Amino acid sequence: MRSFAILTAAACLLAGPALAADALLQRAQEQFKPLPAKAPLAKEASAQRVDLGRKLFFDPRLSTSGLISCNSCHNVGAGGADGMETSIGHGWAKGPRNAPTVLNAVYNTSQFWDGRAPDLKAQAQGPMQALVEMNSTPDRVVKVLSSIPGYKAEFQQAFPKEKNPVTFENAADAIAVFEATLTTPDSPFDRYLKGDSKALDARQKQGLALFMDKGCSSCHGGVNVGGDGFHKFGLAKDPDVALRPEGDTGRAKVSQSEADSYAFRVPTLRNVALTAPYFHTGKVWDLKQAVRVMADVQLGQSLSDDEAEAITAFLHSLTGKQPQVMLPQLPPNGSETPLPQP
Amino acid sequence: MRSFAILTAAACLLAGPALAADALLQRAQEQFKPLPAKAPLAKEASAQRVDLGRKLFFDPRLSTSGLISCNSCHNVGAGGADGMETSIGHGWAKGPRNAPTVLNAVYNTSQFWDGRAPDLKAQAQGPMQALVEMNSTPDRVVKVLSSIPGYKAEFQQAFPKEKNPVTFENAADAIAVFEATLTTPDSPFDRYLKGDSKALDARQKQGLALFMDKGCSSCHGGVNVGGDGFHKFGLAKDPDVALRPEGDTGRAKVSQSEADSYAFRVPTLRNVALTAPYFHTGKVWDLKQAVRVMADVQLGQSLSDDEAEAITAFLHSLTGKQPQVMLPQLPPNGSETPLPQP
Repeated sequence: MRSFAILTAAACLLAGPALAADALLQRAQEQFKPLPAKAPLAKEASAQRVDLGRKLFFDPRLSTSGLISCNSCHNVGAGGADGMETSIGHGWAKGPRNAPTVLNAVYNTSQFWDGRAPDLKAQAQGPMQALVEMNSTPDRVVKVLSSIPGYKAEFQQAFPKEKNPVTFENAADAIAVFEATLTTPDSPFDRYLKGDSKALDARQKQGLALFMDKGCSSCHGGVNVGGDGFHKFGLAKDPDVALRPEGDTGRAKVSQSEADSYAFRVPTLRNVALTAPYFHTGKVWDLKQAVRVMADVQLGQSLSDDEAEAITAFLHSLTGKQPQVMLPQLPPNGSETPLPQP
Repeated sequence: MRSFAILTAAACLLAGPALAADALLQRAQEQFKPLPAKAPLAKEASAQRVDLGRKLFFDPRLSTSGLISCNSCHNVGAGGADGMETSIGHGWAKGPRNAPTVLNAVYNTSQFWDGRAPDLKAQAQGPMQALVEMNSTPDRVVKVLSSIPGYKAEFQQAFPKEKNPVTFENAADAIAVFEATLTTPDSPFDRYLKGDSKALDARQKQGLALFMDKGCSSCHGGVNVGGDGFHKFGLAKDPDVALRPEGDTGRAKVSQSEADSYAFRVPTLRNVALTAPYFHTGKVWDLKQAVRVMADVQLGQSLSDDEAEAITAFLHSLTGKQPQVMLPQLPPNGSETPLPQP
């Protein structure tokens, strides 16, 4: 009997961490979903349309100056963002908010920091027209694209049922369809969610537990570890005015509702280790510091240094396989192509 | 006898164009060389060094603002140039001269419009420091690169014999080695030079003959159809002042010799159909118009419309296979990386 008791106790000691680990995984699986291996493409998204979108995404002629392409601010080689507080746009203008990553943006339930675009196609129409970004107009974009013989042919193939396929909306559609391919599956965290318990190390598991315990995952959950819903930046207490300047009330400007003051769309945390600086102002460059700020102003919690570090280690596990994109060869100007205007 | 004579005459009639065609090919082979299928890489140019160079070429952090990379002005997806009169640089500055193509630049005997750099490695050091381009300094570049953990490791692999490999010179060396891979072999003209008489159509052959007859090939010859030597822009007569403004005397500023006034390096004509606008001022957008200007001010010849068109058709045969370049994934900042300064 005695040896049986000892064996049982030993078995419990051994099983303890394993059970706890299973419990951690089970909790995580309730709150997050792994990124699908394949990007979610509509059936209209033919290979031709994706390829056209790839060209447009990298084509600086969509901007009036001829300098700025989508990839300038949403660099597919740099976590889908540009590593600046706010982007430099037409005439060296400083953009109003930090450029969000294009990677996995297809899984966000709305686009822009204030969610004013319901999807990528609507989003793509914004920067082309914004005075401080590409500073063009739908008319000019169509004039440019329809003057380029290579593009005329490619729009025809990408939108085969349309008689006049070179439209601003179709350009945005093709860009959106390409952007939808820019997903980053197979991060360590995705492998963990799928049952590979070794995909996270002990420190990252500790961080994951804290991420759920402290309440981070109540906003940053689901397939995109965020990317849906709006919350006031400063739920628990007002952030430093440098991080949340008074002039930008976020969602309230879209909804015209006082209740949305300083609300912003919850950003995805996928690949967050690649997308410094953080927040809509881009004022925080250090990820651990950003974690601390969030805990403080959103959750009213002061994290120990060890806790902030563990959560940061977990966030590094959200870096997935980055898209491999061949730089497109852009079709040359036609004789009527409007000239760039710096 | 009679039938023999007829047969002989018929044979001569048939052979006539063939002989003329052979003569054209033979003349062309004396004046031009096909582009080698393989880029000319030094033995130090390991795969690691090329790959590091590819990353640096696309990394906007080499500029102080964080916006401008080598590829901004030498877009590998746009004929290796930027489709602007002169480039937009730091602070929205307008560059002094049209950005020359990076494609096949390795075959030029010197770099820049005034040839002030003997090779690509020397060239690459210019734009990083130019106030109106990337506006950085060697110190800042080294500070940035050595602060990025991914780069530190890659410099070590690319320059394995060096103790402190993260230097400004090595960054330029890696960029140059990558640029040397950006060649465009197998253009129709290259296939023609190698003996495929059908690679050029009749119009292009007419243009080729004119290109040699009129004297274009006396400067635009060799493997790069140009790219070596300096000649006064305006040999036969002064160009319009818009094309050759008085302030920029070209080579003379480098050589300090009056004799070099308004001399510029002869540009390569490879891929010239992709690299509008033309001349050091970038003031001419139409290739046929550029051909006319050249004939007029360099050779003192007035081309008929048909001649200018034929030469333009020939120039289109210089468009080769464009480099297929995978957009690199850039290593993320380290904690000490200097912040971009717009």
